[in-house]
Amino acid sequence: MRLKDLGERALLARLAPLGYPPEAPLPPGDDAGGVWAEGRAWLLKTDGFLYREVALKGMGPFEVGFRGVAATASDLLAKMGRPLGFTLGLFLPEDLEEGFVLELVRGAAEAAKRLGAFLLGGDTNRGVEVALTVSGYALAEAPLPRKALPGDLLYLAGDRWGRTGAAIRAHYEGRSLEGFPKIREAAFYPLPRLELLALSGLLRGSLDSSDGLAETLWQLADLGVGVEVEALPLYPDVLAFAGSEEAALELVLYGGEEFEAVLVVPQEGAAAVEARAKAKGLPLFRAGRVVAGEGVYLRGAPLPRKGYAHF
Amino acid sequence: MRLKDLGERALLARLAPLGYPPEAPLPPGDDAGGVWAEGRAWLLKTDGFLYREVALKGMGPFEVGFRGVAATASDLLAKMGRPLGFTLGLFLPEDLEEGFVLELVRGAAEAAKRLGAFLLGGDTNRGVEVALTVSGYALAEAPLPRKALPGDLLYLAGDRWGRTGAAIRAHYEGRSLEGFPKIREAAFYPLPRLELLALSGLLRGSLDSSDGLAETLWQLADLGVGVEVEALPLYPDVLAFAGSEEAALELVLYGGEEFEAVLVVPQEGAAAVEARAKAKGLPLFRAGRVVAGEGVYLRGAPLPRKGYAHF
Repeated sequence: MRLKDLGERALLARLAPLGYPPEAPLPPGDDAGGVWAEGRAWLLKTDGFLYREVALKGMGPFEVGFRGVAATASDLLAKMGRPLGFTLGLFLPEDLEEGFVLELVRGAAEAAKRLGAFLLGGDTNRGVEVALTVSGYALAEAPLPRKALPGDLLYLAGDRWGRTGAAIRAHYEGRSLEGFPKIREAAFYPLPRLELLALSGLLRGSLDSSDGLAETLWQLADLGVGVEVEALPLYPDVLAFAGSEEAALELVLYGGEEFEAVLVVPQEGAAAVEARAKAKGLPLFRAGRVVAGEGVYLRGAPLPRKGYAHF
Repeated sequence: MRLKDLGERALLARLAPLGYPPEAPLPPGDDAGGVWAEGRAWLLKTDGFLYREVALKGMGPFEVGFRGVAATASDLLAKMGRPLGFTLGLFLPEDLEEGFVLELVRGAAEAAKRLGAFLLGGDTNRGVEVALTVSGYALAEAPLPRKALPGDLLYLAGDRWGRTGAAIRAHYEGRSLEGFPKIREAAFYPLPRLELLALSGLLRGSLDSSDGLAETLWQLADLGVGVEVEALPLYPDVLAFAGSEEAALELVLYGGEEFEAVLVVPQEGAAAVEARAKAKGLPLFRAGRVVAGEGVYLRGAPLPRKGYAHF
């Protein structure tokens, strides 16, 4: 079967178990992979993308390099891994300017630095267009898989929900982001949250959200539970940008590129999680609950699954 | 300046220091990068390539996947890192067959398995042609940089010298490898040497050789020493394939894709290194010595620098 008929999710599901360790800190197909070594969980993650597919209007190579490290770091942090270092795999047209590549790598280095981590080199190859992969490794005291049990509560960490979606919408509609500084910042410098590590040991599970919140919630439901969304974060600037509550919610649910985490919290641990997040300055929004059953519901209505896939 | 005018080596030299840790187990620009964590050296390496640039006649996706993990593992092992796991970053045309991708990943998994390591997932993206990056991480008891002092001896580890070059030549000249099983094996399944780890602590330095032996020796000379090559390994099958000693030596020096290591050994440690290698079954060839001065000489004559670069 051709990839475009198979679909990316089905492809990844078939690839994930190949060569995966029988005893690992995280199951195959989770946001990151890893091994146990020296009694600790060492995580490894690679994420790739085409420059032209992520460079919004106004973004340059610096921002795209920053975004690349952010995307990989977001997966590691959602698994409670503290990022140590990153490498870049670059495919570059031979008539590209040196300055472009330097800015790309400087942006990646800046994101790594702001995460307390480093760039550890990489590789360049000739390619017909600019394409990148970013790999990162992390040490996890308590690696956190995608997991949920009926009765658990759902929280959204961070404050980019809807904002990155708004920036992507602005790009495709040719709209300016002037007057929307937080929307611009969320899309141009989406730094994942080191503060998540402060919640280590308190959570049932967590998922990186970068293909859109709705898709992420559906991936949670794929674990064999039902997801009931009771509330969604609706920031004033997203509402102002979108023009209506309905349009704003569409951005929150289907925006993508958030690089935030969806957290699953046992009911009895909710107060501790909220207190710890508050102490660390991590925005946390209580969005709903996990139930026995299947599917994703928003205030009782089935939530359509429309996520981004490369094939 | 455009990349094709700058050249790949100059580009990498400018990129390597960006974001690199001030205190690291290996210097920037070495075969792999790394950080200290928990008192140990954790190495990370990414290597990328285009499928069509490495797939020789007769190789399929399985062999290319195998080769990808081998290339990254070779860098880690040359630095005395024991590979733990690998991830794949794949760019794939959407009309590619699923079976092709599965074979690619199965080949990568097989190489990882034969190195005592695992595949830890990866990422797929749409691309105009098949391109891969392979990332790997490793734990090193005694990380070994590129280093050499006048008086040190040079050894070549492994037995692929000239053989991979012969396979590449056969590909471009449309020649069959029938009757040359070791040449075919060297190019199709170039498994790096776990046995190198047995030499940990006995070596001054080492370099991965994958752009050709001559280029690797020139990179050694770039450290500020002279390199005197006194002898080169000339296997009977490489000589038979090449047809003359001169043509065979050309393959040994400029073949590329060896995924073997050039070892720098303090004179007083040579006997111990030879004994350890013999005990482990690691082929070792004494090729020459490091001297004060500069440049690379083969039996007194300057050795031309002609290495492969992507730009």
